[in-house]
Amino acid sequence: MLNHRSQQFFQSLQNEICLNLEAADGKEYFLEDIWKHHEEGGGTTRVLQQGAMFEKAGVNFSAITSKLTGKLADALAVLPQRIFASGISVIIHPESPMIPAGHMNLRYLELEDENAWFGGGIDLTPYYIFEEDARLFHSTLKRICDKHDVAFYPRFKQKCDEYFYLKHRNEARGIGGIFFDYLQQDLEKIFLFVQDVGKCFTDLYLAIAKKRKGEPWGGKEKEWQLIRRGRYVEFNLIYDRGTLFGLETQGRTESILVSLPPQVKWEYDVHPEPGSREKLLLDILQQPRDWTGS
Amino acid sequence: MLNHRSQQFFQSLQNEICLNLEAADGKEYFLEDIWKHHEEGGGTTRVLQQGAMFEKAGVNFSAITSKLTGKLADALAVLPQRIFASGISVIIHPESPMIPAGHMNLRYLELEDENAWFGGGIDLTPYYIFEEDARLFHSTLKRICDKHDVAFYPRFKQKCDEYFYLKHRNEARGIGGIFFDYLQQDLEKIFLFVQDVGKCFTDLYLAIAKKRKGEPWGGKEKEWQLIRRGRYVEFNLIYDRGTLFGLETQGRTESILVSLPPQVKWEYDVHPEPGSREKLLLDILQQPRDWTGS
Repeated sequence: MLNHRSQQFFQSLQNEICLNLEAADGKEYFLEDIWKHHEEGGGTTRVLQQGAMFEKAGVNFSAITSKLTGKLADALAVLPQRIFASGISVIIHPESPMIPAGHMNLRYLELEDENAWFGGGIDLTPYYIFEEDARLFHSTLKRICDKHDVAFYPRFKQKCDEYFYLKHRNEARGIGGIFFDYLQQDLEKIFLFVQDVGKCFTDLYLAIAKKRKGEPWGGKEKEWQLIRRGRYVEFNLIYDRGTLFGLETQGRTESILVSLPPQVKWEYDVHPEPGSREKLLLDILQQPRDWTGS
Repeated sequence: MLNHRSQQFFQSLQNEICLNLEAADGKEYFLEDIWKHHEEGGGTTRVLQQGAMFEKAGVNFSAITSKLTGKLADALAVLPQRIFASGISVIIHPESPMIPAGHMNLRYLELEDENAWFGGGIDLTPYYIFEEDARLFHSTLKRICDKHDVAFYPRFKQKCDEYFYLKHRNEARGIGGIFFDYLQQDLEKIFLFVQDVGKCFTDLYLAIAKKRKGEPWGGKEKEWQLIRRGRYVEFNLIYDRGTLFGLETQGRTESILVSLPPQVKWEYDVHPEPGSREKLLLDILQQPRDWTGS
């Protein structure tokens, strides 16, 4: 099976992503925590805080073996047994409100009964919309998907829009991307796809980040970013399956919640001015778009 | 039944609490939103922001009639039917880290089949511990409980410690208080108890707030407050039944989430110095105390 190779890939990818993000930041470095899971295995959590470009970036790698019981065994419709899980997650909260927050997650799961699957995705959460960036982002993801299967992008784009949705706000978390889960057929081929997804993330994210780095902003734009980050927190704590599953199964809390933004505001009932750039964001979040069309 | 009278009480209490908080703040006033529920009834949400004493205070009143279906009907082990629910909730996030966040909630629920009950509670979330305040807080709640039933305080204090607990952090949200639910016996007597609880809140909270108003603090203490407020958000979005029930049943999102603090920080893996006042707080939150003993 693929557990050793996927684990090796995720681990190397963590190193590569951290080096690339450090180079882009130019000021701060990742600090590292190596931890053990209470059953078997463990992980490496890396966090960069108060950098020049990144207010907070977290890159987690973990590989654990755990008893699969109760709710999760039920949810997967399998008998209680041991599960091997490895994965990487990346979350970037930039200082500038003009640079979007970025997120990637890739995981491989394998049961004792030899059931195995990949899951993951990449999505982008801008606080100000630059349409050309959204098009670049989605068309790059589409190109990577198409290389493997032309059915992937439309399916995974839709799944992403469905998943990163805040029902209580009637809005998407961001402009989506791709999201996939339980990919079980042709695992060797899927592994190649997962590797391509993993390897594209920093280049794609940093291309956008570097383009928007010089974009001017002030207190008003920062305030908007802090308020919008509240939605990010709401999504992660109310809906995100990975977060809730991690907390329920007594995962390492600080590694799981490294995804939360460094600074956040909740103001009562904020409504941006009609015609403003802030209002344009809301309009787009309320009606997911096709960013790859002509 | 008690629906009209409890509703009247909650509504008057909202007015009284807002007037008292405005007087204590001395700078800002509550703004008011009157809203209708998508089925029947509605509410009044009042919010005071960026006051002199209160960074944010929210006082909600609502009285709605709704169809009780699905999960909640199952949870209550009753047939699908209409439910009448009225209540008040108060949440106060003070500017000074030396003044605790305060919370009260009181509610009355009545089913078409005439099942009816009260629920609610008061609890306190300090970011710096003043033991005499904790003792004053708990002994006042105990005195009010004892007036009605000497069994109340120990039962409701324990329920409060159990309820306001963050399993993923192994710590309590604050120093507790009282929490009760499904009080169905002797409703007229319970209503008198609920009225006493409601009426004691602002005096008790403001006695503590005014005592700590002059306590000095600086950037370091504010930082600690912002980080600890992260725990408040985690509790409300992951565990709080009222919040999650409200969002699931398509309550008014801005009224429900007015409970969230105005400014919050998440820093990675913060550990206060041994012997510090910050560490003392954590020790107390990890081991609920009896604050009324001699």
